[in-house]
Amino acid sequence: MAEAVRVLVLHGPNLNQLGAREPDVYGTTTLAEIDRRLEALAKERGAEIESFQSNHEGALIDRLQEAQTRCDGVLINPAGLTHTSVALRDALTATDLPIVEVHLSNVFAREEFRHHSFVSPIAVGVVSGFGVASYRLGLQALLERLDA
Amino acid sequence: MAEAVRVLVLHGPNLNQLGAREPDVYGTTTLAEIDRRLEALAKERGAEIESFQSNHEGALIDRLQEAQTRCDGVLINPAGLTHTSVALRDALTATDLPIVEVHLSNVFAREEFRHHSFVSPIAVGVVSGFGVASYRLGLQALLERLDA
Amino acid sequence: MAEAVRVLVLHGPNLNQLGAREPDVYGTTTLAEIDRRLEALAKERGAEIESFQSNHEGALIDRLQEAQTRCDGVLINPAGLTHTSVALRDALTATDLPIVEVHLSNVFAREEFRHHSFVSPIAVGVVSGFGVASYRLGLQALLERLDA
Amino acid sequence: MAEAVRVLVLHGPNLNQLGAREPDVYGTTTLAEIDRRLEALAKERGAEIESFQSNHEGALIDRLQEAQTRCDGVLINPAGLTHTSVALRDALTATDLPIVEVHLSNVFAREEFRHHSFVSPIAVGVVSGFGVASYRLGLQALLERLDA
Amino acid sequence: MAEAVRVLVLHGPNLNQLGAREPDVYGTTTLAEIDRRLEALAKERGAEIESFQSNHEGALIDRLQEAQTRCDGVLINPAGLTHTSVALRDALTATDLPIVEVHLSNVFAREEFRHHSFVSPIAVGVVSGFGVASYRLGLQALLERLDA
Amino acid sequence: MAEAVRVLVLHGPNLNQLGAREPDVYGTTTLAEIDRRLEALAKERGAEIESFQSNHEGALIDRLQEAQTRCDGVLINPAGLTHTSVALRDALTATDLPIVEVHLSNVFAREEFRHHSFVSPIAVGVVSGFGVASYRLGLQALLERLDA
Amino acid sequence: MAEAVRVLVLHGPNLNQLGAREPDVYGTTTLAEIDRRLEALAKERGAEIESFQSNHEGALIDRLQEAQTRCDGVLINPAGLTHTSVALRDALTATDLPIVEVHLSNVFAREEFRHHSFVSPIAVGVVSGFGVASYRLGLQALLERLDA
Amino acid sequence: MAEAVRVLVLHGPNLNQLGAREPDVYGTTTLAEIDRRLEALAKERGAEIESFQSNHEGALIDRLQEAQTRCDGVLINPAGLTHTSVALRDALTATDLPIVEVHLSNVFAREEFRHHSFVSPIAVGVVSGFGVASYRLGLQALLERLDA
Amino acid sequence: MAEAVRVLVLHGPNLNQLGAREPDVYGTTTLAEIDRRLEALAKERGAEIESFQSNHEGALIDRLQEAQTRCDGVLINPAGLTHTSVALRDALTATDLPIVEVHLSNVFAREEFRHHSFVSPIAVGVVSGFGVASYRLGLQALLERLDA
Amino acid sequence: MAEAVRVLVLHGPNLNQLGAREPDVYGTTTLAEIDRRLEALAKERGAEIESFQSNHEGALIDRLQEAQTRCDGVLINPAGLTHTSVALRDALTATDLPIVEVHLSNVFAREEFRHHSFVSPIAVGVVSGFGVASYRLGLQALLERLDA
Amino acid sequence: MAEAVRVLVLHGPNLNQLGAREPDVYGTTTLAEIDRRLEALAKERGAEIESFQSNHEGALIDRLQEAQTRCDGVLINPAGLTHTSVALRDALTATDLPIVEVHLSNVFAREEFRHHSFVSPIAVGVVSGFGVASYRLGLQALLERLDA
Amino acid sequence: MAEAVRVLVLHGPNLNQLGAREPDVYGTTTLAEIDRRLEALAKERGAEIESFQSNHEGALIDRLQEAQTRCDGVLINPAGLTHTSVALRDALTATDLPIVEVHLSNVFAREEFRHHSFVSPIAVGVVSGFGVASYRLGLQALLERLDA
Repeated sequence: MAEAVRVLVLHGPNLNQLGAREPDVYGTTTLAEIDRRLEALAKERGAEIESFQSNHEGALIDRLQEAQTRCDGVLINPAGLTHTSVALRDALTATDLPIVEVHLSNVFAREEFRHHSFVSPIAVGVVSGFGVASYRLGLQALLERLDA
Repeated sequence: MAEAVRVLVLHGPNLNQLGAREPDVYGTTTLAEIDRRLEALAKERGAEIESFQSNHEGALIDRLQEAQTRCDGVLINPAGLTHTSVALRDALTATDLPIVEVHLSNVFAREEFRHHSFVSPIAVGVVSGFGVASYRLGLQALLERLDA
Repeated sequence: MAEAVRVLVLHGPNLNQLGAREPDVYGTTTLAEIDRRLEALAKERGAEIESFQSNHEGALIDRLQEAQTRCDGVLINPAGLTHTSVALRDALTATDLPIVEVHLSNVFAREEFRHHSFVSPIAVGVVSGFGVASYRLGLQALLERLDA
Repeated sequence: MAEAVRVLVLHGPNLNQLGAREPDVYGTTTLAEIDRRLEALAKERGAEIESFQSNHEGALIDRLQEAQTRCDGVLINPAGLTHTSVALRDALTATDLPIVEVHLSNVFAREEFRHHSFVSPIAVGVVSGFGVASYRLGLQALLERLDA
Repeated sequence: MAEAVRVLVLHGPNLNQLGAREPDVYGTTTLAEIDRRLEALAKERGAEIESFQSNHEGALIDRLQEAQTRCDGVLINPAGLTHTSVALRDALTATDLPIVEVHLSNVFAREEFRHHSFVSPIAVGVVSGFGVASYRLGLQALLERLDA
Repeated sequence: MAEAVRVLVLHGPNLNQLGAREPDVYGTTTLAEIDRRLEALAKERGAEIESFQSNHEGALIDRLQEAQTRCDGVLINPAGLTHTSVALRDALTATDLPIVEVHLSNVFAREEFRHHSFVSPIAVGVVSGFGVASYRLGLQALLERLDA
Repeated sequence: MAEAVRVLVLHGPNLNQLGAREPDVYGTTTLAEIDRRLEALAKERGAEIESFQSNHEGALIDRLQEAQTRCDGVLINPAGLTHTSVALRDALTATDLPIVEVHLSNVFAREEFRHHSFVSPIAVGVVSGFGVASYRLGLQALLERLDA
Repeated sequence: MAEAVRVLVLHGPNLNQLGAREPDVYGTTTLAEIDRRLEALAKERGAEIESFQSNHEGALIDRLQEAQTRCDGVLINPAGLTHTSVALRDALTATDLPIVEVHLSNVFAREEFRHHSFVSPIAVGVVSGFGVASYRLGLQALLERLDA
Repeated sequence: MAEAVRVLVLHGPNLNQLGAREPDVYGTTTLAEIDRRLEALAKERGAEIESFQSNHEGALIDRLQEAQTRCDGVLINPAGLTHTSVALRDALTATDLPIVEVHLSNVFAREEFRHHSFVSPIAVGVVSGFGVASYRLGLQALLERLDA
Repeated sequence: MAEAVRVLVLHGPNLNQLGAREPDVYGTTTLAEIDRRLEALAKERGAEIESFQSNHEGALIDRLQEAQTRCDGVLINPAGLTHTSVALRDALTATDLPIVEVHLSNVFAREEFRHHSFVSPIAVGVVSGFGVASYRLGLQALLERLDA
Repeated sequence: MAEAVRVLVLHGPNLNQLGAREPDVYGTTTLAEIDRRLEALAKERGAEIESFQSNHEGALIDRLQEAQTRCDGVLINPAGLTHTSVALRDALTATDLPIVEVHLSNVFAREEFRHHSFVSPIAVGVVSGFGVASYRLGLQALLERLDA
Repeated sequence: MAEAVRVLVLHGPNLNQLGAREPDVYGTTTLAEIDRRLEALAKERGAEIESFQSNHEGALIDRLQEAQTRCDGVLINPAGLTHTSVALRDALTATDLPIVEVHLSNVFAREEFRHHSFVSPIAVGVVSGFGVASYRLGLQALLERLDA
């Protein structure tokens, strides 16, 4: 029996605060709720997800390394590390897995320093600006690609 | 009876060549096929689309102006105009409609001059890099927003 | 009998929407009304105007070429093309006529990319920021120069 | 009886030399003559002006502060201070009056360092390049705005 | 019998004015005359040309798309679009034909903004500065390459 | 009884070495001593502090999140993270608390890369260059603001 | 008997308007009141201040030169000159006295051109963003340094 | 008896994956094997090494601080942190030990953002591009310097 | 009898402190002494000088305007205004006299912001770095040119 | 009898290796062969060439100076010196002869640093990218100009 | 019998002065001594070196061309040419041999203009900052690579 | 008997053409005449000069090295190498002699790329713009310094 496709979902710094902090910018949905919805969506399509959030760049890299052999793709919202972490980019590249990058807000409509991403050039694609829906659309795109 | 949501789908320069030119970069699906699929997706959700492609910046602006009162949102792949047209951006802004920007290829993994978009800062969100799926995901995101 | 001075008035992309779109930024006067007022002002001073708006860079250039021998000066609001069109600048230069550049809004108080104009260095002068009055002041300045 | 609108006309460094120095660039009209013409124009419209020239940035600021409560608007040709004085900009901002910036020459057709103005972003509008007429057009624009 | 090599000759904005406007910069030869000479040169070498001028970026792209299957190479003077049009570049790239870029004037001895070309990096080569001879030299180079 | 104002004092990477390393640059006072003095100052004014140092960006963010509901303001010396951490900035912003940024040395008299701070634009104010006194002055400023 | 420490307090352009202009940005305290408070604080610590405001860069330099031998330190809010005056910086350097720079508003949260200071690299330290309290904190820091 | 020279060998993020990931770029030797070889080389020369790898910037700084008094020099491959970590640079500077920086790949032949290193200006020297040999050469250079 | 050549010698801000402040940078000669030597040198060659120092940009411009008709050339050390004053440059240009710019120190070996001069492009020549001798050499060069 | 037109052909550094090194980039034709072909082409048109290659910037300048009075134009491939030699540019300018610049490869499709040429702004025109044919086309253009 | 590996050692401008000039920066070892040591090291490993120093860029290129067929690798200290010579880079590239770049001083801790090398991107690797040892380490690295 | 001061006078590329080429820019005096005048001036002051011109950067460096022990100072007009040669700068620095840099024309009034000099930061001073007199003034300044 073919094994289910497995996606690693990574959430960067401060995303554990979703729903509680700055709801006008980031909405009222919690990260747990987002994970629950992604899980449901994955299940529907015969896939599985595992999810991890950390405020530590190193912890995100550790998890990527640990999970890379059992996962088939990565869905990541690097949050503030998007613009500053070469180490995270290198870890993503090293997995040799397809990467999909998502952002809740439209980073291009925010401060200049948020317009550059170290992750985008090594990602399959990017979804930005649709709030919680960015995650869902990103997962869909990743699953389709993994099916292809 | 409530009227159906209506989305204007705009395709910028050279996209009429989809499926025929550079298939290794842009895939083998034709623009007609993309429009057909978007139409099906819209229909499924009780919405409608109207679609327009042009190699002329002015023609795209004309269409935007003409359609803006009967449409509820715009899904646009500005193609090469993404990086150079302030006039198109101004026309999009003037519609006062929610804009979703999509790209077939991951523009961030291409030449430096493709990393800047005049459209992104005034868009709701951006979907980039998933080939034909970028359109579908973008339409989904737009419809959901219009429903909200 | 001396022939009346004749001014070509060119309106760039999206200006046909004046009065209808973004009235808080651009006011409620329509382009037709602006043209009517310019015509009245010209007449008062024994001059004539002909006016043309297009969303197409190429159409603006076509008109410039076609009208250049029968006109004595150009009053232009290049709108979004101000910042991006070398071709329009080249067409203006080629007329060998005095050019006056006008803008409704104060472009220097808007986004960075609106601070550079390809037209300004080849214009006689620039009027920016006075709404519809920018056109009138620009026409006055042009007529006086043509009289001198 | 309603009080007459009053405009402060400020002339920056070296403008006292108008008419005597570099006539090929700045024309042969003297500053006194310019002031006389502005006065006449103001009178025609039931307004008044007071005029001040100085080569001292500090003196221009002193005058701005001293006159700000009795004036309704400022017409300024900041000359060389246009490109270098944050202090003058701050003084203009602090008046809370509408500011109109004028230049005799077309600064955009001159050296690169003359293309940036500290005043423009806080001005209502800018008139540049029409010689002495720049002042007149600027005053017109300011008076109309004050009437509105 | 082997079919004759066929070259698409594209002339960008304002080139229809050749011979009539700014003769000191661009010479007195008309575009019709240039086309006639290129035709003669092509014929001599058993080749054919078809020629098209437009002030519309979109029209140039339309023609490129329409002609690309029946032509073997493109000789283009993109004029003002050289420095601003990503869409034209994309259309040229999509033809998969060898491109030769020509300029009448030496663009490197003109304004800074004319030193960058979006076309050069995807062209076989560039000929710039020899007036009408630039076209002839460019066609020669293209024909030789097509023969090789 | 009104609850005492509570301030979170955060010390970034390497500050645990204060007093032991590079005394000529940073002085001989230890971090423990600094905390003790801040505590005394706070007490004097009926306030409380809690203090935390870490070399881990993630740990600083964790603490910020954990302490944000029980604290009324943040006094932070972000040390090397000042210039590189968007994640820390985002965490500070999310607290919605007033932030005061302090530096022991005058960062503007050091290397160019120390002149930019990601924290300053979202801080109430900045104190830089007074050695250990920077902390004390910063706490004073923060307490006064919280009292206001 | 040891002589009292003496501090020169310099206020740059427009600061004489404090309390009267833009109270939402700069507060309602007047400069006279600020000077009075600084005097009280100085007295408390056995020190003296002398205070001077001018809108003239030259007058500030004159005063610095005249007072430098009888003063032991300088507390300066250079206001708009912060970002533009090399002459003021040179005058401050020439005094060989410790300089403390203060700003009422958080200059790093304002326009880009306010992020660079010619004074900061030659100052002991900088206090920015605490309104009138910036002055007080700066004086404290300076007095402590002079005592050390 | 003189104590043996002791070198701290620090490996930055992702280097624990050596030999397993991207062997075409980084070779097939594992980090354990590298450490073993460095140990052998050190022993040969009467020196000792201690080695530490982490994906956490903070952990690398912690180790530097903890080991700095018992070690005589640092051999570091900062990996992705090379280009982004001021905190790591500050920690290295604070040790006051000679630092040698090594890179497996030739960073100057890779992406633009890898050409700048925060570590190089405070290092004794840099060895870059020789694969595993970079470590060996770097250790040699460091030991010789410590012997001198 | 032919009238003696007359040179205006202008000293910018802070130069009145020469000899008293920063003697290690600027030497121990006073400005009075410099003027005396220049006078002697001028006399020797049948010329005259008049000399003026001010810390006020405006006062320097006033003097330039007042003296321009009776002088034949200007020797200027603009000091800190070198790098910041467009107004002074404009005043110098307006005199239509030959300008020689001198600097005591070698400005190119100092801070980056001292490498650009607004005066140099409109000067005949520049002498920089020879201490007091810069003035003498500059005067010599100016007198020779005036004789030629 | 009219003297034959004479062209100096200069080949910059490394061009003596043509045909032997990097044939995939530069082709298999040797420099001797190129010179022979240029000679034949010149002869056909009643002209003469003299040719010189050197890896020494100074030797190229020496030859330019020595040959400038007996030659009527210069055909130069400055190779690596294109982008770095002001001295060679100055020597070319000093000849007062028409200069034609040629490149074998399309420099605009190579590294960024090859996009700028010190020679282009002082050349009549540039031919780039056609391999050995660049020389031939360049000579043709030069001869035609000399005939005109 | 297998032929010995042969390395060309190139020393750029001013390196002939080693040991005599600026010993505090470059040490007291002469170039002859360096060559002697490299020769010994090579011999030990069954290899040979030939060494050449010149102050002439052209002479270095001549030697590279002449020696490239009989050598197997190049060890080069390009000295001042590192940052300015595209011609030398092109010559190195053309040899198709492995290049190792060495520097005596740590160029990254010196002036900004020494941070960029035209050679590094085409080198196998770089060794910088270890004084004379840089040469030895570089030769080792090169020999190992040639053995592999 | 004290030995005479000896100055090495170096003339960079193309200066051997003085008097013959571009007399409107560089005057009609030949280099031989300049050297003769400098010799006379030196003799007058009991000093000696030796003079050398070359179009070869390497030859200039060779001469500098060869002459440095018998000379006491260097007077150099680096011509085109001013802006491009790090090797020449390094050679000048290595002499440890006082360097005076001279230019015939005012380099600051010419092209942007002539505004930066690699020599100026290591020179005692610079004289620029006085034609042949620049040499004389420079020599004077150097001799005075050597006497001091």
